[in-house]
Amino acid sequence: MKNIPYKIYLEEDEMPRSYQNLRAYMKDKPDPMLNPATLKPVSFEDMRPVFCDACIEQELNVSDKFIPIPEEVFNFYKMYRPSPLVRAYNLEKALDTPAEIYYKFEGTNTSGSHKLNSAVPQVYYAKQQGLKSLTTETGAGQWGTALSMASAFFGVDTKVYMVKVSAQQKPHRKAVMETYGAQVIASPSDTTEAGRKINEMYPGTGGSLGCAISEAVEVAVKTPNCRYVLGSVLNHVLLHQSIVGQETKTALDKYGIKPDVVIGCAGGGSNFGGIITPFMAERLEGKTNTEFIAVEPASCPTLTRGRYAYDFGDIGKVTPLIKMYTLGSGFMPSANHAGGLRYHGMNGTISKLYHDGYIKAVSYEQTKVFEAAEAFAKVEGYLPAPESSHAIKAAMDEALRCRETGEKKKILFCLTGTGYFDLSGYQKYNSGEMSDYIPTDEELEAGFKSLPVTE
Amino acid sequence: MKNIPYKIYLEEDEMPRSYQNLRAYMKDKPDPMLNPATLKPVSFEDMRPVFCDACIEQELNVSDKFIPIPEEVFNFYKMYRPSPLVRAYNLEKALDTPAEIYYKFEGTNTSGSHKLNSAVPQVYYAKQQGLKSLTTETGAGQWGTALSMASAFFGVDTKVYMVKVSAQQKPHRKAVMETYGAQVIASPSDTTEAGRKINEMYPGTGGSLGCAISEAVEVAVKTPNCRYVLGSVLNHVLLHQSIVGQETKTALDKYGIKPDVVIGCAGGGSNFGGIITPFMAERLEGKTNTEFIAVEPASCPTLTRGRYAYDFGDIGKVTPLIKMYTLGSGFMPSANHAGGLRYHGMNGTISKLYHDGYIKAVSYEQTKVFEAAEAFAKVEGYLPAPESSHAIKAAMDEALRCRETGEKKKILFCLTGTGYFDLSGYQKYNSGEMSDYIPTDEELEAGFKSLPVTE
Repeated sequence: MKNIPYKIYLEEDEMPRSYQNLRAYMKDKPDPMLNPATLKPVSFEDMRPVFCDACIEQELNVSDKFIPIPEEVFNFYKMYRPSPLVRAYNLEKALDTPAEIYYKFEGTNTSGSHKLNSAVPQVYYAKQQGLKSLTTETGAGQWGTALSMASAFFGVDTKVYMVKVSAQQKPHRKAVMETYGAQVIASPSDTTEAGRKINEMYPGTGGSLGCAISEAVEVAVKTPNCRYVLGSVLNHVLLHQSIVGQETKTALDKYGIKPDVVIGCAGGGSNFGGIITPFMAERLEGKTNTEFIAVEPASCPTLTRGRYAYDFGDIGKVTPLIKMYTLGSGFMPSANHAGGLRYHGMNGTISKLYHDGYIKAVSYEQTKVFEAAEAFAKVEGYLPAPESSHAIKAAMDEALRCRETGEKKKILFCLTGTGYFDLSGYQKYNSGEMSDYIPTDEELEAGFKSLPVTE
Repeated sequence: MKNIPYKIYLEEDEMPRSYQNLRAYMKDKPDPMLNPATLKPVSFEDMRPVFCDACIEQELNVSDKFIPIPEEVFNFYKMYRPSPLVRAYNLEKALDTPAEIYYKFEGTNTSGSHKLNSAVPQVYYAKQQGLKSLTTETGAGQWGTALSMASAFFGVDTKVYMVKVSAQQKPHRKAVMETYGAQVIASPSDTTEAGRKINEMYPGTGGSLGCAISEAVEVAVKTPNCRYVLGSVLNHVLLHQSIVGQETKTALDKYGIKPDVVIGCAGGGSNFGGIITPFMAERLEGKTNTEFIAVEPASCPTLTRGRYAYDFGDIGKVTPLIKMYTLGSGFMPSANHAGGLRYHGMNGTISKLYHDGYIKAVSYEQTKVFEAAEAFAKVEGYLPAPESSHAIKAAMDEALRCRETGEKKKILFCLTGTGYFDLSGYQKYNSGEMSDYIPTDEELEAGFKSLPVTE
């Protein structure tokens, strides 16, 4: 067996040329999205006012296992991919574990995360369709930055609604997006009906992803030649993120490594869906027994404490209904620093696989997550984003269990991004001012009351 | 000939195992450093109170072409190296140039720059020597971050004096260093005699690298089992940075590429010295005619308008005298955003090679540099540090000249780091509030008056 280096890189010609479609491997498909007006499955035409045509086709495609990556998109990918797959030798040593820990590090591009993987094709498809502008939302700011980068490259105007609490915590994230030419608006804003309504209902709110989505969708629908793009939750986003898992699998296969556990943080589900895709495909084909663990913040426990039901993807109730694990679009998560995981719902495919027992879920309080983040940074060098650090915490716990049992498990996790724009969170943690928040059952019940009646 | 990919990565076993010593290739060696008290060449013993033994040995070594990299240091390098060598296909296209542009990107580690390359061996050597703590200075914050990372890894206490103007512009840089366990003090401070004196002489000053150096050296000398470490200027730092050039050369050699021009920004000279080392070695051996261009800010024009003379490395006049291009240690650079290039002097080896005609130098005003930075970011993706963007600007100008002449030059530059912590500079540029500063001849004359009399 070859020695495993600290970082496994692929050559350009080993990079995936197609997206891998997880749903095509599922015998029991996720329930279709519903048009909230008719409660019938949404059609291509239903979605056209909001989304780019190519993305809708991908959203509705549950049968093709592979969908080719356009040449222009591949050329952009070549600028920042393949991302490194790292063997965490130093973390293993620090934990004194017999386990092998691997992580796919998606933070080496300027957006600082995996988000760029989906921004590139989405902007490319919009450009191909002749669209002039795009709108979106951003939480931690990574998706907004990613979209701004892709928009600058392909020359498409972009307006970003940024969750207000993130905009306040991260003024420099805003500056990055503006440097790439995007217009950034703190949400809820007074530029949309949805924003004004939410500001009235929840005065002084720090906003949420669901709320920013409502604003962005409203503008997209009302502006000619404009569409809305989303950085997570939807299936076409997971499809694009499958390159993360595919690169990982190709790299591991070169060394004959089969992961026993695959771990990812889960907000809307995109990086988790991306890293698990090829491994879950093998499990669904009966070839492996790989375990999958989705990790979420205890403050927004969608999988671990949510309901599996049809719900809106946004707070303004303008999106199609998605069958998913949800806390209810009316659930207002407490302000915490894992901005990118503060979402009431979860991608429908991940939800279905969780419901069917293929995926486990765990949740952690944020002080535990920051503790893991700092321990990781000190031995592995990289300063992780708080979102990503949920996966680190779970991987470390798994490795510590192996120390108890003596198991030599191969643990793989996705390190989605860097924490360079999350230093106010680290400052708070370092100064001991960070507290944890776990919603009470009553608070969750209040959120569930916002679920739409679909039967 | 093989197709040249967007990024050329090396395998772990292709990484350099030795540092390459540029001075060993020079027939005319740089003049020795002098003890300011005796005006005689400094000895090993002279420097022992300030520097680690291993670094002094390297500093004084002008004859060994290669010095082995310790195994523990190499293991740390494997966590974040090799760094990518990028073919800037998209920048070439945007500039419509027949030139080929390559850049070595040193920004993929958490310090965000090449600085980590020297922090790792310096902390390792300190640990080996049994030292308990280290002091240093930092300008833009990249060196301080790098040192904090290495110190956390090897378990050595570290105190960082950070140029006050940078500390104010970049509070989050401070937070990163603190996250890795370092103590950060804005300089000039009241914790040292040097700091108090400078605050008296220049009330309200934003500080400078030279000034922060004085403070850090003072503390190192006065504290038991403590030494001072420096992120640039000195020859052992350039020695460590030679891995940048060596990796680059190995990567280019794989594709049969010989650069016609090698470009780097130059503050103290460390990245410039690092990228040029193996190429300059070949030129000094008479094997090539490669051009070398050092790029500096017009606001701190050390090479282009400075004098070649013996001078102190710091403002407090506690370091040995270095024969170098200098504006005088009394030169107080205007506040600008290229914090890392705001240094009155220049590494002695680079100075000597410039004096002997092997290196050219150019300077740019900062608005032109930010203009180049944004143009680069939009087509190449990476958001560059203002320091690094000086090299980008020079490379773009060289490529545009090739468009005029039709030359197919191969242009190589070092992209030292990312601008994630320089967003206040970008904000200022984007809002049109950034101005340029070029010191008058009178201002330079005032600086030259601080030069020590050595003859």
